[in-house]
Amino acid sequence: MAVWPEEKVFKDPVHKYIYVQEPAIWDLINTKEFQRLRRIRQLGASFFTFHGAEHSRFSHSLGVYEIARKIIHQFERNGFSDWPREEGLLCMCAALLHDIGHGPFSHSIETVFGEHHEAWSCRIVQGDTEVNRVLRRIDPSFPDRVAAVICKTYPQEIVVSLVSSQLDADRMDYLLRDAYCTGVNYGMYDLERILRVIRPHRGDIVVKESGMHAVEDYLTSRYQMYWQVYFHPVTRSSEIVLRNIFARAKAIYDAGDGETLPFLPEPLRRLFEGRLDVEHYLALDEALVQAAFSLWANGKDEILSDLCKRFLHRKLFQYATPTRMDEALLERLRESIRREGYDPDYYLQVDFPKDLSYDVYRSGAASRKKPIYLLKHDGGLTEISEVSDIVRSISGTQYGRHRIYVPERILEPGNPYITAETAEWLKGE
Amino acid sequence: MAVWPEEKVFKDPVHKYIYVQEPAIWDLINTKEFQRLRRIRQLGASFFTFHGAEHSRFSHSLGVYEIARKIIHQFERNGFSDWPREEGLLCMCAALLHDIGHGPFSHSIETVFGEHHEAWSCRIVQGDTEVNRVLRRIDPSFPDRVAAVICKTYPQEIVVSLVSSQLDADRMDYLLRDAYCTGVNYGMYDLERILRVIRPHRGDIVVKESGMHAVEDYLTSRYQMYWQVYFHPVTRSSEIVLRNIFARAKAIYDAGDGETLPFLPEPLRRLFEGRLDVEHYLALDEALVQAAFSLWANGKDEILSDLCKRFLHRKLFQYATPTRMDEALLERLRESIRREGYDPDYYLQVDFPKDLSYDVYRSGAASRKKPIYLLKHDGGLTEISEVSDIVRSISGTQYGRHRIYVPERILEPGNPYITAETAEWLKGE
Amino acid sequence: MAVWPEEKVFKDPVHKYIYVQEPAIWDLINTKEFQRLRRIRQLGASFFTFHGAEHSRFSHSLGVYEIARKIIHQFERNGFSDWPREEGLLCMCAALLHDIGHGPFSHSIETVFGEHHEAWSCRIVQGDTEVNRVLRRIDPSFPDRVAAVICKTYPQEIVVSLVSSQLDADRMDYLLRDAYCTGVNYGMYDLERILRVIRPHRGDIVVKESGMHAVEDYLTSRYQMYWQVYFHPVTRSSEIVLRNIFARAKAIYDAGDGETLPFLPEPLRRLFEGRLDVEHYLALDEALVQAAFSLWANGKDEILSDLCKRFLHRKLFQYATPTRMDEALLERLRESIRREGYDPDYYLQVDFPKDLSYDVYRSGAASRKKPIYLLKHDGGLTEISEVSDIVRSISGTQYGRHRIYVPERILEPGNPYITAETAEWLKGE
Amino acid sequence: MAVWPEEKVFKDPVHKYIYVQEPAIWDLINTKEFQRLRRIRQLGASFFTFHGAEHSRFSHSLGVYEIARKIIHQFERNGFSDWPREEGLLCMCAALLHDIGHGPFSHSIETVFGEHHEAWSCRIVQGDTEVNRVLRRIDPSFPDRVAAVICKTYPQEIVVSLVSSQLDADRMDYLLRDAYCTGVNYGMYDLERILRVIRPHRGDIVVKESGMHAVEDYLTSRYQMYWQVYFHPVTRSSEIVLRNIFARAKAIYDAGDGETLPFLPEPLRRLFEGRLDVEHYLALDEALVQAAFSLWANGKDEILSDLCKRFLHRKLFQYATPTRMDEALLERLRESIRREGYDPDYYLQVDFPKDLSYDVYRSGAASRKKPIYLLKHDGGLTEISEVSDIVRSISGTQYGRHRIYVPERILEPGNPYITAETAEWLKGE
Repeated sequence: MAVWPEEKVFKDPVHKYIYVQEPAIWDLINTKEFQRLRRIRQLGASFFTFHGAEHSRFSHSLGVYEIARKIIHQFERNGFSDWPREEGLLCMCAALLHDIGHGPFSHSIETVFGEHHEAWSCRIVQGDTEVNRVLRRIDPSFPDRVAAVICKTYPQEIVVSLVSSQLDADRMDYLLRDAYCTGVNYGMYDLERILRVIRPHRGDIVVKESGMHAVEDYLTSRYQMYWQVYFHPVTRSSEIVLRNIFARAKAIYDAGDGETLPFLPEPLRRLFEGRLDVEHYLALDEALVQAAFSLWANGKDEILSDLCKRFLHRKLFQYATPTRMDEALLERLRESIRREGYDPDYYLQVDFPKDLSYDVYRSGAASRKKPIYLLKHDGGLTEISEVSDIVRSISGTQYGRHRIYVPERILEPGNPYITAETAEWLKGE
Repeated sequence: MAVWPEEKVFKDPVHKYIYVQEPAIWDLINTKEFQRLRRIRQLGASFFTFHGAEHSRFSHSLGVYEIARKIIHQFERNGFSDWPREEGLLCMCAALLHDIGHGPFSHSIETVFGEHHEAWSCRIVQGDTEVNRVLRRIDPSFPDRVAAVICKTYPQEIVVSLVSSQLDADRMDYLLRDAYCTGVNYGMYDLERILRVIRPHRGDIVVKESGMHAVEDYLTSRYQMYWQVYFHPVTRSSEIVLRNIFARAKAIYDAGDGETLPFLPEPLRRLFEGRLDVEHYLALDEALVQAAFSLWANGKDEILSDLCKRFLHRKLFQYATPTRMDEALLERLRESIRREGYDPDYYLQVDFPKDLSYDVYRSGAASRKKPIYLLKHDGGLTEISEVSDIVRSISGTQYGRHRIYVPERILEPGNPYITAETAEWLKGE
Repeated sequence: MAVWPEEKVFKDPVHKYIYVQEPAIWDLINTKEFQRLRRIRQLGASFFTFHGAEHSRFSHSLGVYEIARKIIHQFERNGFSDWPREEGLLCMCAALLHDIGHGPFSHSIETVFGEHHEAWSCRIVQGDTEVNRVLRRIDPSFPDRVAAVICKTYPQEIVVSLVSSQLDADRMDYLLRDAYCTGVNYGMYDLERILRVIRPHRGDIVVKESGMHAVEDYLTSRYQMYWQVYFHPVTRSSEIVLRNIFARAKAIYDAGDGETLPFLPEPLRRLFEGRLDVEHYLALDEALVQAAFSLWANGKDEILSDLCKRFLHRKLFQYATPTRMDEALLERLRESIRREGYDPDYYLQVDFPKDLSYDVYRSGAASRKKPIYLLKHDGGLTEISEVSDIVRSISGTQYGRHRIYVPERILEPGNPYITAETAEWLKGE
Repeated sequence: MAVWPEEKVFKDPVHKYIYVQEPAIWDLINTKEFQRLRRIRQLGASFFTFHGAEHSRFSHSLGVYEIARKIIHQFERNGFSDWPREEGLLCMCAALLHDIGHGPFSHSIETVFGEHHEAWSCRIVQGDTEVNRVLRRIDPSFPDRVAAVICKTYPQEIVVSLVSSQLDADRMDYLLRDAYCTGVNYGMYDLERILRVIRPHRGDIVVKESGMHAVEDYLTSRYQMYWQVYFHPVTRSSEIVLRNIFARAKAIYDAGDGETLPFLPEPLRRLFEGRLDVEHYLALDEALVQAAFSLWANGKDEILSDLCKRFLHRKLFQYATPTRMDEALLERLRESIRREGYDPDYYLQVDFPKDLSYDVYRSGAASRKKPIYLLKHDGGLTEISEVSDIVRSISGTQYGRHRIYVPERILEPGNPYITAETAEWLKGE
């Protein structure tokens, strides 16, 4: 390993600079697996809604590392005894690598094919990869320990919390970065203020009581981002189109009709067959997927071709927001769509924001993630929504509405295939 | 065309909002040719140097439109008589579409294959495209007029100036946007201040005399961006790798050795054969090119495979900055490289920043772009570098240094193939 | 009046530029009454808590004008029929002048002497002043109309709403400006987004339904500013010291003991006597008041001298936050203070944030200001807290706690004059 | 001294937070001499030009301390051997206190009365003050050492450089802060980037060669601030009015005509008599001076009254920019002014920007401040203007023009007292 004369930096629009002070971190960044994250966008198809959302998981991963580094540095500077100093490097490695298993348009692919990026992250860390070799050079046990942190089985819970909890480096970076790139600056919160109020406490990260307003600010920013960006109906629409492309292509392949797929490189073939290995998983990136869409758009299958063009040219589905779900009316709509010549399996989708992997703040059993605790003067802990009306109001929020996505033509006024009753229903309030 | 009840907006990180007040602009944005710009990055391979440089020409093109709209709006609001009001929509269309002909990694492709994005912009505007149809709906002469503005042959010079000059909407947006996305905030300048000091004057756009410092600020920001971002040696290195990939793939194809190219979709084949048409040119995007690199990386030609991997995994060439060019020493270096097993045609490149399509401010004959004039109280004009020492110092600047790019291994200390004299020479000052 | 060749601007840190397009606005700004606002800080003594809070009511008043101008401009540009175009100039004048009657450290002076800045604003507008003369030049009725808007008796309610409501130009500016100057950037909200969602509707300003999240964002920013800045206990402490200085000085004066006031210029004398007229009111500024404090600090009255030094040297009172109010314990504390040699009338203050003139969002009867209505698709109106959980949670918030302010020495551990029981009580939770 | 459990912070709009990690720094901030800086504006009367320029020397002094702290912290973190670690606290104290001797509107008072704020800073540090007592508690020699750093006689030159040189913490803060408060954001530069490229080297602070562009950016920002803010003709005008007020008041006092000065507190009396001591110097603040102006405005001396009103109501002098200085024409103008009833000693001023205490970058003998050196790879040093064209162009810049300031009326077109020749001359180019 080379001499390491001085810290290295990356210029970053969100954190100004990202400081690399450990050779291992530098080497991890330079692995081909990490470099691949440059070809995977952080927000999938959200760029159709917010054109600035073009940033990659590479940028975000550097940011998560930087926030983890800052938190650890702050804990060490203040000499907090509940922070296990010897876990610093592990924690920074896990922060850097926690998204290494993300594929192109993860949410859509995961829904259609049942892959899980977290599991892939572990496979990449533990498999025959450059990342694995760098980690082993630190210590032979490092790959397994990093994987354990990512998969939340590491015994030192505080290390897991720093990478994955309601107040983790992952969210802290993506909220700021997504806000910065989309221009939705109401998603900004004061990171330095949050860093000042958190501290390690008996194996967990808690917030000192006087920092309650800082956390409220962070959670309301997050709430704004969920409803303005992550759950935006146009983004949902693009994800529906994406899912239906994958589903259709797989159906064609499964039907043994491979000829109608004018381009099917090995990684996609293996994805369809459910037998991806690390090597081919890593070869899956957005360039490959979008190139496939381009070529499929010229193929013979009309549905696949149409869906690919919709994606490439941003002719997404439109949506209606009916006041209530009504199976009978929905069935009638399905029938109308069929009569217009569309296969409702690919051209009608009922959607409810809840099913996203994102979630707003939830306390207790409602969330898979650890809630946020305030540390009182007397050393006791209070879950924040017990004392903050504003947090309670956010965590109970259920604004989500059922939406029905269909091709634009279906919703045009005066469409003869749609009955007056259905039209009335679709109009919503 | 639909009813147009209210202005539409795009959320933009640089301009906050982009206002669309004309249905034709809205329709142009929704054409497939314009949507394709989402798949072409604004700064090519600069993201290897500044990870935030992931924004597309789509975002930039919207920004150029918005600045043109603001300038025109300002001219109209102030009632400046030298502004031809009837050209407003034409000017905004040309601003929006001026980059419509950009292909993937344009600078590299243009260098290797001799294509010109400006010419392609005109072909797309005038050809059988959605863009052309929207423009014709405004007026049958519109496509030709837009093309004339883009190709700088339009008789109303002020319209051309607004889209392409030393102080045009194009540069005004890209400086801000590139600074914002890379985080290089010393590239920021005060747009609103520039808008306040420019005005139409006898067929040109000039700056009122009291605005001299505003222009100095704009030009020094630009100067910073050129040396910090656009001419950055790592970016140059990635462009050299890119060019060599294209050159090698073409050489293989020309040699009739198509079998060694595991993937060659029609648009690339036509590019190699020099017979691209509008349809196939539009199918060329970064996804297709990067997918090709991915697949070529697994092909049989070792040089092509190695170069593609260098690009995908960011194992770019390293550089040396010798104090002077010396053909004899260069020839000896070429020999050493050959002895190390590298083909110097693909693994050695002498580079001098000047050949980029970007340029710092030049007045007079040194520039293809109109210089900037100050409008004096008495109505006379002065070219800005005549009165501003700071601008003169920038326009005369020749910091560029010859650099020699080679694989990292070549420059490692103690490389036995490199003689002491060559090593000394490469070390530079 | 001079020729008005081009719009004039002020460089402003919050709005970038403030545009003056009407000669009357320019002339109002140049009156001596408006210039006097430079000598009155926007946030009174808050600079003791946030050192950046040094901005004046002059800056804020320009900002309120600018926001009103932007709103009106937006209403006119969109051609909203419910906006009475002929009221534009009136509305901008009232926005500019709404704080013209503020005196130095208004909240404290108003509490002690019963003056009301709103009433003074009207007197200045209607009295023998430069402001009055500029307004009369527009139209003889203008002074009365401006005064009516400021005092909320103007028949066109929408004009009043724009200057004073839950969503008025006044708050919109002060939230942004106070956040900017203090550095408390979590008080920032997206002004341009708010401007996009408000519209005139039957004599009122309402928010289109899809703008609900924009208003939530604005109200949570405001909530943050109230608890972090406006209700900050150190600011409260400085206001208590201020009030006690005024109260003590008046008591000395009332006791006929004018000799112990080493400096009592006419405006202060008239303030004490309750017979201020417009001329002397205008001569009251922070410079005069602080100069008085400086000179009083060297006077013979020990209490007044001490309080003035506390203010000048920032030796403010400390506070305790007992869990509950207890009259018996409070009386005992008063007794202890007396035994320490302090007069509890000037050295003990129970404080509850509610009594401030600031308030968080309240709907309905709980507020003197108009609530915010959402305009539904069907034209109906809904008060925002009925549909937004987050706004409801904010408007019901009662975090305020009783605090007891006393000299630092009283709260020192081991103070022999404080019994164990009192100490326990003061410690709070 | 109290227990010091955790670092303390100030919220700051420029640096986000200012970190206090040493009890002595905290105690210095809480002295009455340091608190007094809240009553002295950083930019004197510049708020008349840029209304946002209302920030105090208190805010700036905290900022200088914070930058010094960051530089020292960076030097220590990188383990640079040329940094004398034991001087850290001394350096931070000097940074914090370097402006402690500034009085109200220093430049004007210093010009009229010959006081020097630097000398006063040393007297305050070494005299019978709270500041002195805090410093002595660190070490009995500390007051003298801090004074030596401020007066540039301290033997460790690097400590002096950090507080006062061409690249010192003082300028680094004021450029950012003045840019932030005025809204002149082209005065912003990238502080973090500068901090990354400076390092201690043989008793001096130098810039590593690759940081040349960072310094260019810093110096061009500074150049912009000088010409846009510090040398702004309106600011110059307000300083001329100020100086003439002081000169007139002193003339009245010297004439034994004290009765016509309706208010003359002891600190002003002593200023006039040239026998200020530390105690009375500290009592001089802007509140006292402005209160005096308010009261003098009502006094009997017409000139003093008029000048005071001009200052309070911002009826400043107007200026003309003649092409060349011409003593004969100037004498004739003086005569005209006299005929209009003005005393030219108080109503005519020839001004040239050079005489300000601010200066743009100068190298070598032209400057009292150390120039900036680049540290080359071979360990040699180069003065930056030798290699940077842009810096050379700035340091040679002499844009300054003679201006003549007179009451507005004098310059009104058609003024019968002004001959055609004089009018022509005043018109300039």
